[in-house]
Order: sequence, then structure tokens, then C-alpha cells
Amino acid sequence: MIIVLKQNIDTKSREYQRLERHIRNSPNIELLVYDFQGTERLLTEVLLIGNTAALSIDEIRSFPGVDHVIRVSEVYRILGRHKDDTRPNNFTYNGVTFSQDNLNVFAGLCAVDSAESVEAMMKALQEHGQVCTRMGAYKPRTSPYSFQGNGKNCLPYVFELAGKYGIKVIAMEVTHESHVEEITEALEATGKPTGVMLQIGTRNTQNFELLKIVGRQLEFPVLLKRGFGITLDESLHAAEYLASEGNQKVIFGLRGMKTNIGDPHRNIVDFAHIPVVKRLTRMPVCIDPSHSVGSRSRSSDKILDIMHVTAQGVIAGANMILVDFHPDPSKALVDGPQALRLDELGPFLEDVRIVREAFEKRLALFEGLN
Amino acid sequence: MIIVLKQNIDTKSREYQRLERHIRNSPNIELLVYDFQGTERLLTEVLLIGNTAALSIDEIRSFPGVDHVIRVSEVYRILGRHKDDTRPNNFTYNGVTFSQDNLNVFAGLCAVDSAESVEAMMKALQEHGQVCTRMGAYKPRTSPYSFQGNGKNCLPYVFELAGKYGIKVIAMEVTHESHVEEITEALEATGKPTGVMLQIGTRNTQNFELLKIVGRQLEFPVLLKRGFGITLDESLHAAEYLASEGNQKVIFGLRGMKTNIGDPHRNIVDFAHIPVVKRLTRMPVCIDPSHSVGSRSRSSDKILDIMHVTAQGVIAGANMILVDFHPDPSKALVDGPQALRLDELGPFLEDVRIVREAFEKRLALFEGLN
Amino acid sequence: MIIVLKQNIDTKSREYQRLERHIRNSPNIELLVYDFQGTERLLTEVLLIGNTAALSIDEIRSFPGVDHVIRVSEVYRILGRHKDDTRPNNFTYNGVTFSQDNLNVFAGLCAVDSAESVEAMMKALQEHGQVCTRMGAYKPRTSPYSFQGNGKNCLPYVFELAGKYGIKVIAMEVTHESHVEEITEALEATGKPTGVMLQIGTRNTQNFELLKIVGRQLEFPVLLKRGFGITLDESLHAAEYLASEGNQKVIFGLRGMKTNIGDPHRNIVDFAHIPVVKRLTRMPVCIDPSHSVGSRSRSSDKILDIMHVTAQGVIAGANMILVDFHPDPSKALVDGPQALRLDELGPFLEDVRIVREAFEKRLALFEGLN
Amino acid sequence: MIIVLKQNIDTKSREYQRLERHIRNSPNIELLVYDFQGTERLLTEVLLIGNTAALSIDEIRSFPGVDHVIRVSEVYRILGRHKDDTRPNNFTYNGVTFSQDNLNVFAGLCAVDSAESVEAMMKALQEHGQVCTRMGAYKPRTSPYSFQGNGKNCLPYVFELAGKYGIKVIAMEVTHESHVEEITEALEATGKPTGVMLQIGTRNTQNFELLKIVGRQLEFPVLLKRGFGITLDESLHAAEYLASEGNQKVIFGLRGMKTNIGDPHRNIVDFAHIPVVKRLTRMPVCIDPSHSVGSRSRSSDKILDIMHVTAQGVIAGANMILVDFHPDPSKALVDGPQALRLDELGPFLEDVRIVREAFEKRLALFEGLN
Repeated sequence: MIIVLKQNIDTKSREYQRLERHIRNSPNIELLVYDFQGTERLLTEVLLIGNTAALSIDEIRSFPGVDHVIRVSEVYRILGRHKDDTRPNNFTYNGVTFSQDNLNVFAGLCAVDSAESVEAMMKALQEHGQVCTRMGAYKPRTSPYSFQGNGKNCLPYVFELAGKYGIKVIAMEVTHESHVEEITEALEATGKPTGVMLQIGTRNTQNFELLKIVGRQLEFPVLLKRGFGITLDESLHAAEYLASEGNQKVIFGLRGMKTNIGDPHRNIVDFAHIPVVKRLTRMPVCIDPSHSVGSRSRSSDKILDIMHVTAQGVIAGANMILVDFHPDPSKALVDGPQALRLDELGPFLEDVRIVREAFEKRLALFEGLN
Repeated sequence: MIIVLKQNIDTKSREYQRLERHIRNSPNIELLVYDFQGTERLLTEVLLIGNTAALSIDEIRSFPGVDHVIRVSEVYRILGRHKDDTRPNNFTYNGVTFSQDNLNVFAGLCAVDSAESVEAMMKALQEHGQVCTRMGAYKPRTSPYSFQGNGKNCLPYVFELAGKYGIKVIAMEVTHESHVEEITEALEATGKPTGVMLQIGTRNTQNFELLKIVGRQLEFPVLLKRGFGITLDESLHAAEYLASEGNQKVIFGLRGMKTNIGDPHRNIVDFAHIPVVKRLTRMPVCIDPSHSVGSRSRSSDKILDIMHVTAQGVIAGANMILVDFHPDPSKALVDGPQALRLDELGPFLEDVRIVREAFEKRLALFEGLN
Repeated sequence: MIIVLKQNIDTKSREYQRLERHIRNSPNIELLVYDFQGTERLLTEVLLIGNTAALSIDEIRSFPGVDHVIRVSEVYRILGRHKDDTRPNNFTYNGVTFSQDNLNVFAGLCAVDSAESVEAMMKALQEHGQVCTRMGAYKPRTSPYSFQGNGKNCLPYVFELAGKYGIKVIAMEVTHESHVEEITEALEATGKPTGVMLQIGTRNTQNFELLKIVGRQLEFPVLLKRGFGITLDESLHAAEYLASEGNQKVIFGLRGMKTNIGDPHRNIVDFAHIPVVKRLTRMPVCIDPSHSVGSRSRSSDKILDIMHVTAQGVIAGANMILVDFHPDPSKALVDGPQALRLDELGPFLEDVRIVREAFEKRLALFEGLN
Repeated sequence: MIIVLKQNIDTKSREYQRLERHIRNSPNIELLVYDFQGTERLLTEVLLIGNTAALSIDEIRSFPGVDHVIRVSEVYRILGRHKDDTRPNNFTYNGVTFSQDNLNVFAGLCAVDSAESVEAMMKALQEHGQVCTRMGAYKPRTSPYSFQGNGKNCLPYVFELAGKYGIKVIAMEVTHESHVEEITEALEATGKPTGVMLQIGTRNTQNFELLKIVGRQLEFPVLLKRGFGITLDESLHAAEYLASEGNQKVIFGLRGMKTNIGDPHRNIVDFAHIPVVKRLTRMPVCIDPSHSVGSRSRSSDKILDIMHVTAQGVIAGANMILVDFHPDPSKALVDGPQALRLDELGPFLEDVRIVREAFEKRLALFEGLN
């Protein structure tokens, strides 16, 4: 059960105190309280776990501080969609809105290799009116003997260049809690010229300790990628680890599933799950066409597979695209074979625009019917 | 090596006789000859298998009856794309053209249950200007105790109704060679009011004996569905069984792969392989959104998952759609839960039209760039 | 529901006629009758499908011709194990008994290439006291351009040599109904010097038409291999196709499942399913270590992986082993890299003996406890 | 390249200094130094990474402090087996030897729930002569709302009871670096009555930051379980993360792979990979039959599937068994349905003994042949 309190009613109020006393009369119920501080108002939700069947929803609704009550199903309690659930499916971070209803493109470097590459990338983004990017500083690699990313050393110039070129949000993978601290420090040291979306990669989808720590900080939104050896259901449960610790600014990322039935693609593209995630949860859905496809192969129609699968994501309602570019793919230190070139950024964005427009026509078609 | 002879040069000509004598001088080479009889001209191709490295392409090109020569790679010799390969990627059957460049919709009944259902379906198709359909008479079922389809008994009324409503091509699964005979007989008995595309299902993708027999008949085109436990490469090899026996009118069907990483969908949708099949072979590519998804679930945007994945296929260049409809899904004998209703046919076709239009804009965008 | 009739009560008897009339009084019930002709007695079983809940088991039991009645669950009606089900888990063919309680080894050629190879193999088998073998005449191959087996041409010498060396049962894959006819004819032409177990391969596990035809003949027992892209449950359902047509002499074969999580083995070995198949059904279980592993790699303990996985099958109660040998693996036309050499036959059998002895000790240990 | 120094030659010695100067003359080579302090002697290995092709092995061998030199392949540099590689495949911890040549059983609680359960378990182990166990204090769970283990609170009584009942090594999963600190502190606080083997679970196989931290400590050996969505090769690479940081006391654990082709087992049992891991690396191999099977189902021979798959592991040379027991499985907080009862410990151990004896007979059989 989730109890949404009235605006600006917090846990110190008399209204809440009375409500809490009432609930604590029933045994075996745990209360988790979440505050969402907007610019003008505070929103507080109380998640009850345990033997809530003993409580009367009507009675709880009648308490003065209560706005409304949602009876949640067992799964995806916080991020899920439940009956009569009108909680929002969006959030705004550093001026950029993330929602199940819009689309943001994060084109950028899989791995930061040099300030020159970063600047070339960000300049190109600004020229095309983009305010988001991806920049990998910490790279988890299969072998300990492979390049592991430039780490915290590259953060200052990445953030400064982001500020210079008007980038508002950088998606950046973290694989350890210390990376969050390093990012926070580097942002402060450079005067917060940009924002960061923390990315949890497929190898860490069930690294629950990392999820808990990242979920406890409320500053950065989090992009959680689907785990490649587990079911969709298990990956959605992992997202709840973030939310149950307090951070509900969560985006769910599809990036292909590892199995040889996807050959010759690097992974089998799983973007058909976009409508599933949007049906089951309130999270915006991101796609990663670069890691799904893993090559620059193009079809007999001369269009890159990466662009075809991007189009497949967008036509079904994807809300975010994470895509690898590089000024010189042949020199990229990680995943060069799948990177697009900077001169392909314009056509890529135009392709996305064409397909998103078609998606909106589809929405309008079915809107009129239901 | 494939030798394409000049128009109307056949194997009885003196030109061919000389060529064959020349080739037979080299040991360990097998010749397979394929004739394609068009309305006005005969086209003959000769496939050489074995130790062709010993032959000089230039020398063979210089023979009078030879139009051009293709050095084929080891895989997908006949249906594959090879260097400097200008063979067509299309064919016409009963007035309907199948090509890597166009799109045909086959909406219809997964399993024929009654003449009433068939008539209602075909009437709706005609009203929407459709000339193709799917009609399952022979149904392979997991359990021997389940309904196995109405078999040959339903063929006469299916064909007559097709004629009545202007249906040109019916996709129909066959699971045994006798079904091809039954279809041929029923078509003749009813005066050939329509055409049939033989469909080989995912359980029989590597039923090589069936493929050989179906490949030997040249009347009906064949839709070969991808096998669910094998790699894409192995399924494409299976298509070569049809072609190597003579029938090159082959369409390759994607229908989802069976694995629990696709849950809650019935199968994991594999339509990202559309550009791959079109790159590797000359076959038009069909998608089966109904069997991929397996349910009428719809997303938070109110659009059915089946329609979303159809859109994903079309936006990436699918050439044929096989989709289940039923006048009353709750009474369908097979796969009712995934069938669309007749009142959804119009919106379905309009949705496909919107997305195909966007695909063509994408083609134009990239056409100008390359 | 299965009604087992008393010995020598057949469907022409007055007892059966009365019983059938009684059953037909209830609507929507289908009767399937199976006769098992032993050397001395006839056993008849009647399988009722449909709305059997309306029937009283006690009433049916009271009919004079009825021996006993089994209320079957929905799945695996004939081959499955049901509550209070005492039907046998074994059968005898050409003097060899196949049972969930014993073990037969079928060492032999994956593909027959020459009479010399066949004779060398059978001579070695006789020297080691073996009376079963495998001999592949019809080989389904991924590519139509690969060697497809020597087919019916090799049958006469294979059968004659079997007779010469005392081989009682040859496991032989069939991929088309005509192969059964060819085998029958060749056996008759050569004076039935041996017996044949028809093998249905993994590509045809759900080739239901072939299963029905093979299930209708009652002479040859059938080895049905598990399908590589489907669940165990679906493969067990496929076995019911054989039994529902009348042939209950069915052995179920595990041969590894195709997925890259099995790398570097050719398939992931699935012999942990031996106890599962024996729990759910009455079929003896065969293992195919050669196709599971697919190579002659050996571990740091110098033992071949093929022998290790054979041991894994035997220690868990496997009842039949299908294993590839060849007099000269480097010259084998199919799957040479996984074949054992003839000088390895002795150690292989000794290894199997050691492990089977341990399995029997395990049986005794737990027998005393339960 | 790995340079093994002579006994008691360390990096401060003149011999090493000369060697290092020589190596540093070549550009682009990184040196990693590993010390192994035995009771009597120090062993030092130097791993060279980078452009080692420029170095002469013979020249390096001629340096006075060098014992021998191993040219390593690109993969599994430290833990792998290489040509002419005589490094050991074993280590001893707290009096217990772990080796590719022996077998240790770790029966115990999947999750510690109470001191009573722990004591009952350990008492039973002592009665059966066992000195190892498994005890889960930190439990990674799919849902954040499930019981997450008793954590550090249970460590004092677990360690004290271990001391009381003569347990030498407890396998215990850690999911965060703080757990290693908590274990270290609790061991010191209780006077080090026992030892701990740190276990990295399948969800953290590619949690490289955790692996690096656990690899840097040299006190506790590490059991690394195979990751369920990745290839065997990738999981073996993950083990190198431990070794490359210094800890070579690594055991590799097979625990089944997550896919529905393993149904009705919880995972598909992958113990056929035992000989593969032993061929490719020097790590002892552990099996986890409980998590592979996931239920107490038993076959028609009355033997539990868990015992059958344990036997399959042992007959192929497994070196360690991790198996769940519980005094009262119905009350276990985690994975109760797969736990064995204490009265089954005796038969379990006897079963293992029978099978290990057969394995040793197999070794002797093949030893004589090669």
C-alpha cells in the first residue's frame, strides 16, 4: 500500500503523526517514507510493507493529511503501475525532462579517450542542437588486462567541455560507489557546468549493494540497464532496489540480450519489450542500439543495422537513445567497430525525427479509437 | 560458381552443349541446372558445385551462350548475395509481386474453423482492398490430443470463398508432402480460383526431406519460417534446400525465437534480423507479429504489443506480414488469445501504412547520402 | 483415463462391446484402442480422451473384462507415469531388453561410409561382447551441398555384416517415411539378419507427420531425440505422438541443447534431465555423449570429455548410450572430430562398467533408506 | 610471460634489480609482481604484460635469480594452464587443502537464520567428520522487499560455533567490500576460531570492482561462481581479476545456467564443464547441486535429483561441493525447498564416497593407458 500525503504535509506534521500511530497499531507492518522536493512543494509518499491486508483503505483515506491511497501489487511496488495509479511517469533533471511521453538522444563516446575527442563530439552535438551525451569514464572490461577507462582523471575536462558546449546531462557508467563521489567532487570543483545521469551497466544489474548506494543519493538520476542473463521481471525488480532506497528518477535501459540466437548481431535486440516496460512500470525506457548490434554492418538498402534498430525502438515509443559516436572510430579504445562517425550524426538525428513523427501519428490514430 | 545463360538459351542449345563439354573436362564438378520460365522469356542458370577453382571465369564468360558469371561464396549459393551479383530479389505469383522492395499483408485465420469464419474474414479483407490472406488447414500442435486442423476437408470452401472475394494468394502451412498434393487437387477441383503460398513452420525448418519435396515443385512459392532452436545461419542454409531443388520463389519468415528471455512475450521478437537477411540473401523477409508476441496485451499508450512489433518490422523494411485475425477470438480453436478482431483490421492496415511511409522517407534520406 | 483390459480380452469380445456401449452413453468422449501382442497373450488398453470426468471409475472397474483403470493426468497420457500406475517401463526387441532398469551401449558409426568401416566396427563390437550398434545411413545435414549419407544403398551390407557379427539391434536415423520402407525391404531381402531401432533426430522431434507414421508401425522400436530449441516438456509431448498412434516401444534420447552457454562443447550437456524423464514417464533414457561434446578434447586428468559426460549419464541412471566410433576418425565423412577410435572401445566399455557398478551401489544405498 | 624467481629471491634482491633493469630496457612492458609466502619459503612470480615478444626467453632464463619462465597465452594469464607450465593447481588454507586432485564437501545453511540452526548443522557435520561448511550471512535477493540475510550480527555466533565443532573453513558469500571487513573484524573479535572462504555469487561474477578488492586481500581464499548470463570464457576471465590483483587462491564454481531449457530444474546443470575448467585453468572446481536443481524432486529410483547431479559432478572430478542443508527445511528463510535434512547428511556423504571411489578407479584405468 502506498499512501500519498497532501502537498507539504511531511513526517513531522501532526497529521502524519496521527496516521503513523494508527498504522503502528497493526502488527508486522514496516513503513518506508519518501520525500520528493519540487521547486514549490514537497510531496511525501509512505510505502507500507507486510501485513497490510489488515488495514482498511477507506479508513486511511479518511485521515486529514492523506491525499490518496494506492493498493500496490506485490511486484514493482514503487516504480510499478498499479490499479488507479495516477503517479507521474516523468521527472526533470537540470532542465531536461525524462518521461514515458518524450524522447531524448544521448549520442557520445563509449569511452573517453582524449580531450580532443570529447571536444569534437560535444561541438558536433551543439551544432545539432543536442543537450545530452554519453561519456564513459569507468569501463568494465571482460579481461583485467584490457583498458579500463580514464577514470576520474578525465572528469574535469569532460565537465568543463560540457559546460562550454551547452550539454545539460551526461550519461556515465559507474561500477563502484567511489565513482559517484569522484563525479560529485569533480562537478563541484568545476562549478557544476553540467549534470550527470549515473548509468548501471548490464554486469551490475543485480549488484544490489551498488544499487542501494546509488538509490540513496537523490541528486543524480539513474539509468539501469537490463541484466543479460536474467529475465525482464528480475531486471525490473532490480530497479526497485533504487526506488526503495529513495531515488525514483530511474530510467530502464534495453541493450540486447546475450545469446547466439542474435548472431551476427552482438546481442539479440530486445526492443520489443519497450511497450512491456511501459505497461508494467512508470519508468521511461532507453534503448542502446550500439551495444545491441555491435557492428557497422549495413543492409542491402545501404542503411546501417544500428539505424534500423534505433528506428525499431523509436517507432514503438522509446524515450531515450544511448548511441556510440567517435570522431575516428578506427582509433577508439573501446567498441570502435560499432561507433558512428560525426558526419553521421545529422542523418542519424534526422532518421530519428522521421520515425518519432510516425510514432506520434500512430499514437493519434489509436488515441481516436480507444 | 553460377553461370547465367543468355535469354532463351536452354540446355538443349548447341551453345550450352559446348559449355557443358568444356566444364566436364575438369574433374569433380557437379552441374545443377535451373530454368525460370517468364511470360516472354526463359532464363537458365547453371550452378557448379565442387572443385570450381580450376575453372577460368574469363574463359567461361567468353562462351557464346553465357550472359554473366557469378563467383559464389560457400554459403547460400543460390539464394545468397554475392559479389557483383545482379540477380533479382523478387518474383511474381498469381499477379502479386513479392520483393525485397515492397510490402504485402497476409491477415487471416491461424486455423480454419468454419466456412463462416473464412467468409467473414475474406469479406473484411476485400472491403479493405486486400488480396492476400493466411488460412491454416494443417496445424502442427505440441500435443497429439489437441485439435490438428480441418485438413483437406476445408480446402474446397476456402478456395471458393477466396475466389469470391478476390483473394489472390493464401499462405497455408504444410507439414507433409501429401498436403501439397491435396492442395493441388483441391485447387484444380475448384477451378483454381486463387493461389497458395506453401508455408513451412518453425518445427519443420530442418525437415530437409519436406524441403526437398516442396523445393522440387515449381508452382507454389514457399514461405520458410526460421527454426526456433537454431542459429539464423542454419535457417538460411535450410532455405537453400528449397532453392537447390529448383524453387527460388522463397520468402524467409521471422517469427520470434523460443527462450524465456522474451517473457512475457511468447517468443523473443527477432525482427532486428530483417536487415541481416536482406544483406545476406535475396529473399523477401516476412514477419509474424502474432506468434512472436502471443497475446493481446497493450501498453500504457493503449496500442497492442502486436501492433508495436509489426511497426518495428515495417520500419526496418519487412516485405510481408503474417498476422492472425478472427471474427470471434474467444471462439478460435487455435491461438485465439493472440488474434485481432475484424474491426481492428482497418486501424491495423492504417498503422502499417503510416510506418511504411516513414520507412520510405528513411530510404530516401539515406539514398541521397550514399 | 486408461482402461487396461484383462488378458486376451480384445475389442471383438462381448465384454468389450458392453463396456464400449456404456462409455458411448456419455457425450464427447473419444476411444483409442491399443493392442500389445506378446508371445503368449494379448494385452489391450483403451485410452479415453475428452469429458471423462463424467464417468465413474468404480463403475468401469466393475465391468467383467476390465483388469484395472488408471486416471491419467492431462500430460503424457500414454507414456507418462500416473498415480497408481503399474504399467511396465520396459520392452524386449529382437532378444534385447530395453528398460528404465538396465543399460545398453550402442557404439558405432555416425555415418556409414564403406563396408570396410562397417565390418571393422562390428568385428570390434563382437570382440567386446556387444550386440547393439549405431549406423547412420540417412544423414540430415545443415547444408544441401554436404554429404547426405549413403542411404538405402548401404543397407544390404550393413544388415549382412550385422548378422555375421551377431549384432541384434542397429540404431538408425530416419528422416522420411520412405526410409522405413527401405529398411523393411532391405531387412527382408537379406533375411532379417538383425533388428533396427528407428531414430528420430533433434531436427525432426516435432515433425509430427513423421512421428505419426513411425508410431503406426509396431515392428521397430523408436529412439526419439530431444528437440534442441524446445522445452523438455514439449519433447516429451512429441513422444506421445508415437504412442498415441500405437507404438509404445519408445526410448527418449538426451543429446545436449544448442546454445552458446555450452561452449566450448558443441551443445550444453543435459544429462541432469535423466532422473526427470524417468520420474515423469516410463521411457528408458538414452544419452548421446558424442553429439553433446562434439570434440576429442581431454581434461588435465587425460580423460576425454566424451568419457566424462558418458560417466555423468551412467551414474545418474542412463539406460542407453549412443556413441560415435570410427576405424579412422580423420577419414570419417561426418562428425569425425568427435569419434572415438576402435582401440578406445575396450577402455570405454570398462569405464562404463565401473560407473554402472557405482550406480548400482547408489541404488542399493538409497533402497535401504526409503 | 611469467618469470618464476628462485626461492627466497624477492624484489629487493640485487638479482631481481638487475633483471628488472633489463626488462625495462624494452618499451611498453608492464611488470606485475606477486609474492607467495609459504611457511618456510617465499615464492615470487613476475607477470609481464605488453610487448613481450621483443624479449628473449633464453636471455631471461640466464639471469641468476630466475628459476624458470613460462610463455603465457593471451587468455587466463595467471590462472590458466600454459605450455610447459608446472605451477601448482592447489593451495592450503587453515589446514585444509584445495586442489584439482581432491574433494571437499561444504554442506551447510544457505542462509543463517538462528544460532540454533547453525549449531544443529555444525554438530551434525562434526558427527560425520566434516571440517567445512557453508553459512550465508549476506543474501542477495531478487526483490528489495525479501529477507536480505542476518548480516554481520550473526557472524560472532557462527564463528564461535564453528570453533566449538571443529569447522576449519566456512564458505560465505560477500556482496560488498564492507562484508570482508566485517568478517575480518568478527574473526578477530572471536579469536579466529575458524577460517572463511569468500564466495562471489553469480550476480557479481562481473562486478569487477568487488573482484579487485577481494583479489587484493591475500588472507581468504575465494570461490568465484560462474555468471549466469555469460559464456564460460567470460567467467574464467573474471577469475583473472582476482589473480591479477594478487590472490591466486581461487576456486571456480559451477552452479547451473539460467535458461528455461533446464526446466523443471531451476537452472540447467552445467557440470559437464568440470573437465573443461580443469583443462583450461589450474583452479579447483566446485559444484553447487542445490542451486542448480532447486527442488527436492526425486526420480522413479527414489533418489533425489540433487543427489544425482552431485554424483554427476563427482564422477567427472569435481573438487568441492557446496550443498544446502537445514534442520527444518520448511522453516528456512531462503531456498528451503531445495535444502536437504540433517538425517540425509549421512547418506549424502556415503553417496559421494561411492562415486568418488568410482572416479578414482576411472583415473587409474586411464592412467595406465596414456
